[in-house]
Amino acid sequence: MNNTAVDTEGAWFEPSRISELRRRLPIPYVDIVPVRTDTDGTISQVGLLLRASGTGRIVRAIVSGRVLVHETLREAIARNVEKDLGPMALPRIPVAPQPFTVAEYFPTPGQSLFTDPRQHAISLAYIVPVDGETAPQEDALDLAWCSVPELLASGMLEEMEGGHDIIVRRALAHGGLI
Amino acid sequence: MNNTAVDTEGAWFEPSRISELRRRLPIPYVDIVPVRTDTDGTISQVGLLLRASGTGRIVRAIVSGRVLVHETLREAIARNVEKDLGPMALPRIPVAPQPFTVAEYFPTPGQSLFTDPRQHAISLAYIVPVDGETAPQEDALDLAWCSVPELLASGMLEEMEGGHDIIVRRALAHGGLI
Amino acid sequence: MNNTAVDTEGAWFEPSRISELRRRLPIPYVDIVPVRTDTDGTISQVGLLLRASGTGRIVRAIVSGRVLVHETLREAIARNVEKDLGPMALPRIPVAPQPFTVAEYFPTPGQSLFTDPRQHAISLAYIVPVDGETAPQEDALDLAWCSVPELLASGMLEEMEGGHDIIVRRALAHGGLI
Amino acid sequence: MNNTAVDTEGAWFEPSRISELRRRLPIPYVDIVPVRTDTDGTISQVGLLLRASGTGRIVRAIVSGRVLVHETLREAIARNVEKDLGPMALPRIPVAPQPFTVAEYFPTPGQSLFTDPRQHAISLAYIVPVDGETAPQEDALDLAWCSVPELLASGMLEEMEGGHDIIVRRALAHGGLI
Repeated sequence: MNNTAVDTEGAWFEPSRISELRRRLPIPYVDIVPVRTDTDGTISQVGLLLRASGTGRIVRAIVSGRVLVHETLREAIARNVEKDLGPMALPRIPVAPQPFTVAEYFPTPGQSLFTDPRQHAISLAYIVPVDGETAPQEDALDLAWCSVPELLASGMLEEMEGGHDIIVRRALAHGGLI
Repeated sequence: MNNTAVDTEGAWFEPSRISELRRRLPIPYVDIVPVRTDTDGTISQVGLLLRASGTGRIVRAIVSGRVLVHETLREAIARNVEKDLGPMALPRIPVAPQPFTVAEYFPTPGQSLFTDPRQHAISLAYIVPVDGETAPQEDALDLAWCSVPELLASGMLEEMEGGHDIIVRRALAHGGLI
Repeated sequence: MNNTAVDTEGAWFEPSRISELRRRLPIPYVDIVPVRTDTDGTISQVGLLLRASGTGRIVRAIVSGRVLVHETLREAIARNVEKDLGPMALPRIPVAPQPFTVAEYFPTPGQSLFTDPRQHAISLAYIVPVDGETAPQEDALDLAWCSVPELLASGMLEEMEGGHDIIVRRALAHGGLI
Repeated sequence: MNNTAVDTEGAWFEPSRISELRRRLPIPYVDIVPVRTDTDGTISQVGLLLRASGTGRIVRAIVSGRVLVHETLREAIARNVEKDLGPMALPRIPVAPQPFTVAEYFPTPGQSLFTDPRQHAISLAYIVPVDGETAPQEDALDLAWCSVPELLASGMLEEMEGGHDIIVRRALAHGGLI
C-alpha cells in the first residue's frame, strides 16, 4: 500500500499535514456514479472500478475524491472522473449543483451508513452519464460496465466498501430503476 | 386561431370531448426548459419558442405539452421536444424522474402563479440539455437561443404567458445561475 | 369489493364516467409516505395501512389518492392524509412541491415498476411527517407504525401491491436510512 | 470587529490555526433559511438576522455556520439554528439530507455568485420551518420575521452579503412562491 492508493490528492500536502487536517475538519468530497444511458435517459449500465482499498483488499468502487481548495464542484467532478475513467470519458456534468444524496463518512463504524477510516468526509453524490471511451487509470485494476440487472444479481455491490454500495442503490432508486 | 395552435394533442379527441375531460380532471403535463450547456455542465443558453398564444397574442414559450395515456414521462418529454424543436434536437432526457419543480396551472388567475385558461394542469418541469440541431416546428414562428445574461436583460421573460417566465427563472436558480 | 374500496373519489362521478376518463387520460395522483421523525429529523417510524385491495386481497398500503380538479397539490396531500389517517394526524405538508420521486402506474404489468389495473396514474411522491394522533379510517382495517429496522425485517414490504414497497424504499433511501 | 463576530466556531482553534486550515481546504458549511409555514406547508414568513458583518457593516443574514469534525449534518443544522435563533426555536430538521441547493463561496468575488473573504466554503442549503419562540442570540442585533411579499418589496434582500439574498430567492423558488 502506498499513499497514491489511499488518496491520490495526498501529494498536495506532506502526509503528516493532510492527516492533521483530517483530524480538524470534515473534508468535502464528491461521489460520482458513472452511468451509460439509453436515448430516453434511463440508466442502462453502471461503471464500477476495481481497486486496492486502503487496507489492501480488492474492492469495487465508484468515482470519489476530494474537492480541492479554490476548485468548483463542477471542476472537482470533471477532475475526479478524468482521474478514474481517463481523459476521453466525455462526462455530462450535471446541470444543477443539487446532489441526489449526501453521504457522511465517519471514521467510526456505526455513526452513519458510511465509513472512511481516514477521515470525516461530507460527500455530495451525483449521477454522471458518460458518453465517451473509458479506461481504468493509475491505481485502478479494472473498470467494468454492468447492466442494472447484472449489477443487482452479481454480488458486485457486496464487494464495495465504506457504503459505496448504498450510494449506487440510491442512484438507481433516484433514477427510477429500483 | 385554430385548434392546433391551442393544443397540438387536441386531435386525439373531438374538441368537445377534450374540453369535457378538462372540466373533470387535472391534466398531467411536462414543462421543458431546453438549454445548451458548457462542457462543465453550466447552462449557457436557453431556448425559447415564439408562438401565437391561445388568445392570438405573440408570446415566448418553453416546450410544454400533455402526457398522453399509456405514455411514459420519458416518452412525453422526447415527443414534446421533437414536436417543438424538431427531430434532430438530440435531447438528453433526464436520468431521474424527479422534476426540479412542479407547476400547477389553474384557469382562474390568482389561484397559483400559473394560469391556463383551458384547464387545470399539473406540470412536471425538467431542464433538458439539447445537443443537436433545432428548428421551430409547426405552430412556432421562431426558436431563439439566448445566453443567460441576454435572457435576463432582454425583457424576453416578460413576453411569456401563464407563468412560463417563472419556470425559466426556477430552472436558472436550480442550475445555480441566479 | 365495492367502489369505495377501489377508489374513494369514485363517488364524484358515476362509475361508468370515471372508467371512461381513465381510458382517456393519465390520472394525477399523490403518494404519501407517512412518517414519525426524531427531533433531529430522521425518520423513526413509517405508517402503513392494512386494507382490502381491489382484488379482495388484504394488503399493506401507503396513503395514496387522486388530485381532484381545481385542487392544489397541498390540498390533495392534506385531504388524502385526513382520509386515511384521520382529522387529528397533524401532517407537516412539505415546504416544496418537488416530489422525492414520481411513480408511473400502468395497467399492464411490466411497463414500469408500478401497476394499477384501473388506470394509468402519474403519482408525485412525498414524505409527510405526522405529529398528531392517527387512526385507520373508512376502508382501512388497521394502521401500523413500524420502526425502520422492523419494517425492513418484517416482510411487511412484501405485503404491498402495485409497487408501494418501492415507494417506501425510495423514501427511506431519500431520507438517508438505506 | 472581534473573532466572535466573524466566526463563532473560531474558538475551537487558535485564530492562526483556523486561518491556515482555510487556506488549505474548502470548509463545509450549512446555510439555513428559517421559515414559518402555513398549515398547508406554504412558507408564510422568512426569518432574517441583523448582524455586524466581518467588515463592520450592518447586514441581514440567514443562519449559516460550519459543520464541525465528527458532527452530523443534522447536528450541525440543529446547533446553528440554536446558536442564532435560541434554544426554544423548535426547528423541524429536514427529513432528507438532499439540500435544495449548494452554495460555493470563494474569497475572490466573481468566481461564483457567493463570496466569503475568509475562505472557500461549500455550503449545503436547507429550508428549516421553525415552530417555536425565537430570539436573536449573541452577535445578532435583531431577528425579523417577514412575510414573503414584504420581503420582496422591502429591499431587505439587498442588505444581505456574500450572496445570502440569492439563497433566500432560491428557497422561495424551491418553495413554489416565486
